[in-house]
Amino acid sequence: MTTNETLHLLTHHRSIRRFKNQSLDRDTIQTLLTAAQRTSSSMFMQQFSVISVTDPQLKQQFAEITTYPFTQSNGHLFIMIADQHRNEFIGEEAHENTKLLHDGDRSLAAFDDAALAGQSIVTAAESMGLGAVILGSILNDAQQVIDLLHLPKLTFPVFGIAVGYPDEKPNLKPRLPLESVHFENHYQEPDKQTLDAYDQTIQSYYTHRDSNTRNETFRHHIIHDMQVSPKKRSEILSILKNQGFFEN
Amino acid sequence: MTTNETLHLLTHHRSIRRFKNQSLDRDTIQTLLTAAQRTSSSMFMQQFSVISVTDPQLKQQFAEITTYPFTQSNGHLFIMIADQHRNEFIGEEAHENTKLLHDGDRSLAAFDDAALAGQSIVTAAESMGLGAVILGSILNDAQQVIDLLHLPKLTFPVFGIAVGYPDEKPNLKPRLPLESVHFENHYQEPDKQTLDAYDQTIQSYYTHRDSNTRNETFRHHIIHDMQVSPKKRSEILSILKNQGFFEN
Repeated sequence: MTTNETLHLLTHHRSIRRFKNQSLDRDTIQTLLTAAQRTSSSMFMQQFSVISVTDPQLKQQFAEITTYPFTQSNGHLFIMIADQHRNEFIGEEAHENTKLLHDGDRSLAAFDDAALAGQSIVTAAESMGLGAVILGSILNDAQQVIDLLHLPKLTFPVFGIAVGYPDEKPNLKPRLPLESVHFENHYQEPDKQTLDAYDQTIQSYYTHRDSNTRNETFRHHIIHDMQVSPKKRSEILSILKNQGFFEN
Repeated sequence: MTTNETLHLLTHHRSIRRFKNQSLDRDTIQTLLTAAQRTSSSMFMQQFSVISVTDPQLKQQFAEITTYPFTQSNGHLFIMIADQHRNEFIGEEAHENTKLLHDGDRSLAAFDDAALAGQSIVTAAESMGLGAVILGSILNDAQQVIDLLHLPKLTFPVFGIAVGYPDEKPNLKPRLPLESVHFENHYQEPDKQTLDAYDQTIQSYYTHRDSNTRNETFRHHIIHDMQVSPKKRSEILSILKNQGFFEN
């Protein structure tokens, strides 16, 4: 397979959840943000923002929400924000109708923009020898995050990214077989035999990896996660609507 | 500012919309998909799929939906799919309640996963000297895309990515000043003076760029795009719900 420095990074990604006690310097943070900003945005509307959480008390609150203590003590914590508020500001300034910014289409666009830019931050960090983990767990209490970060209407916290100097090198976690996720021209229904084989692969990975071993297949994992969810995650749709997204 | 090969790519990204008449070989496509698969996914639920559109008649239909003829004739066309269908299959196989997969939380997760993986494809492509453009324009007719690709419940087309050998080198399009999109600890309201300065930057860019020059500020662009939208894009929220997303 073709390779180069960037491809090597992308095809060897692992999430890092243990960091050395070393902050990122200003130049490094600036570089990560430049990579985020250069990312494509839907219709060039640049509908995302980033908040760096640096205040120790705020970091403590994110550690509680995410249940990850490393968001508190190490590296740098970015929160990616879906943001149509800036565009609504521009519309209101000009006394224009901003209704379109609230519809399903422009809501998805803001979430896309934030996610695309976030992935650029992860890749940029890894290229500098840093490690990163995407923290969907900030949505364990989306309303609290909105309140803590003073997020106005038409903004929403998409995920956090903890970046820092890695203090672990986890094994590469096997992905679904490519034929389960890539199709030509038409969607293909999932296939029991392929999932059976992948269950064995994942079970072997969890049994043999260097730390936090357990006996679990992919199906176990998926079924567990569709049965239980942190309580406040069930409120996300109503919070989205309260923030002015997905109105029509 | 720190730099390396990957950072150079990320900070010099431009969307490529004109490609040489040369297809991607199988190894290249495989490499791009491997990069996509290795990307982080929310709770390791791998809730995305990718469809390669290779059938000439189907490509013709995407050229019409997106209004971009280059989706038809050059490079390779990926469609990124938000996919909870595979996980619902696993749940139904085990006679489990799959209701959680339909909620706002897991809907956003599927869109996040597809976008993150899509950005890895773009970066991987650029590292190989290829060019790419993200095609949100497939949502000009989301229902037709669903029908064309035979997308079942709990799947949705997020965006397309056209990848190919670049036949243009557009100027770098200036982004919003970093202070407009990056904040510390709390969201900051947009600032008229900063937008004024950026309007001038964008006006100068559009006036002086190598092709397709026009007289337009950022505010003009944003206001135009919040007034008019292809007709069927207003149906996206109802199509999302019809596909089983954002049910609660």
